[in-house]
Amino acid sequence: MKTTKHTGPGIFVLSSPSGGGKTTLVKFMKKKFPDIIYSVSTTSRKPRPGDKNGRDYNFITPAAFRKGIKENKFVEWATVHGNYYGTPELNIKNALKKGRSVLLDLDVKGAMQVKKLFPEAVLIFITAPGIQELRRRIISRGQDDMETIRRRLKNAREELRKIKCFDFLIMNEDIRDAQKYMAAIYKAELCRIKNGGRI
Amino acid sequence: MKTTKHTGPGIFVLSSPSGGGKTTLVKFMKKKFPDIIYSVSTTSRKPRPGDKNGRDYNFITPAAFRKGIKENKFVEWATVHGNYYGTPELNIKNALKKGRSVLLDLDVKGAMQVKKLFPEAVLIFITAPGIQELRRRIISRGQDDMETIRRRLKNAREELRKIKCFDFLIMNEDIRDAQKYMAAIYKAELCRIKNGGRI
Repeated sequence: MKTTKHTGPGIFVLSSPSGGGKTTLVKFMKKKFPDIIYSVSTTSRKPRPGDKNGRDYNFITPAAFRKGIKENKFVEWATVHGNYYGTPELNIKNALKKGRSVLLDLDVKGAMQVKKLFPEAVLIFITAPGIQELRRRIISRGQDDMETIRRRLKNAREELRKIKCFDFLIMNEDIRDAQKYMAAIYKAELCRIKNGGRI
Repeated sequence: MKTTKHTGPGIFVLSSPSGGGKTTLVKFMKKKFPDIIYSVSTTSRKPRPGDKNGRDYNFITPAAFRKGIKENKFVEWATVHGNYYGTPELNIKNALKKGRSVLLDLDVKGAMQVKKLFPEAVLIFITAPGIQELRRRIISRGQDDMETIRRRLKNAREELRKIKCFDFLIMNEDIRDAQKYMAAIYKAELCRIKNGGRI
């Protein structure tokens, strides 16, 4: 038996409807567990004010994105609101090769695609208590017009239906509670005895 | 969707070789999460100094124990060092009926029997870093004679081989770390989306 208390690094995927609190939780996890590698998604959408290339997204052209798709570079990709978003498979493989856990922030479809290729991935769904609360949160961010908000809410409702395929659900009623549950899930998984046995 | 952040109560089984730190962790969990019901085992062994009936064990006569076996009252039972030990099935069922989690402190065989009847049970193995450290801990407890210690160590070695069937492994190098991992496993499981869907 290896004399480590950790049974190995893991793949953690966070999903939530817009306004579910995913971004805040990702920030918290980066700070609390600096050893986790955060997977920066690649996108063809234009940077918004405050977006930083390499931190929020890797911004590339639509043409460059299509080339990546053809060359099978993405573990998951999709077009959302008319733009490409995707995760290079190397984001995951490179982290695991270094013996480090990797955290991904994906929509439900993306999470499913990761789970298909990496069945050991841990899927965590964060949600606000209800659609009304979600609406309030999206509006209070003040970044989007009403049409965008309606579209996001429609997507959110559809996503909520799919969460039975997830491993964990965190109800984000109180962000500090949500952070504690998120940290607990991460720490617990470090103790998990993997099938096939790492010990 | 129910507006609870908990997906339901769980069955938690702690196992460890003697000296692995199980007793200390059980005490910690009782204090930190008073809502968990601790399953008190039934035994036919004689109380040791400090043992309290109903707290450490339910002490009954060998004849009464055999009657319980015949009536199929035990979810698991065994003879260890010549005495009967067992868990009444009602310990688990009553807790779950109340919507509360239940914590069991069992040997590896007992844990397996619980998992067979309750596949959703979460099996956690606590272990000291190595057999030598284990020996030191058992001896420093100062309760047992050398023959007992040898027998316990032999059992401990056999138990260690079986832990691949467990869900989690906590290496008890530092008791405070071990407590944190134990609490994390419990909290994480409260967020688990059960197959069949409680949400």
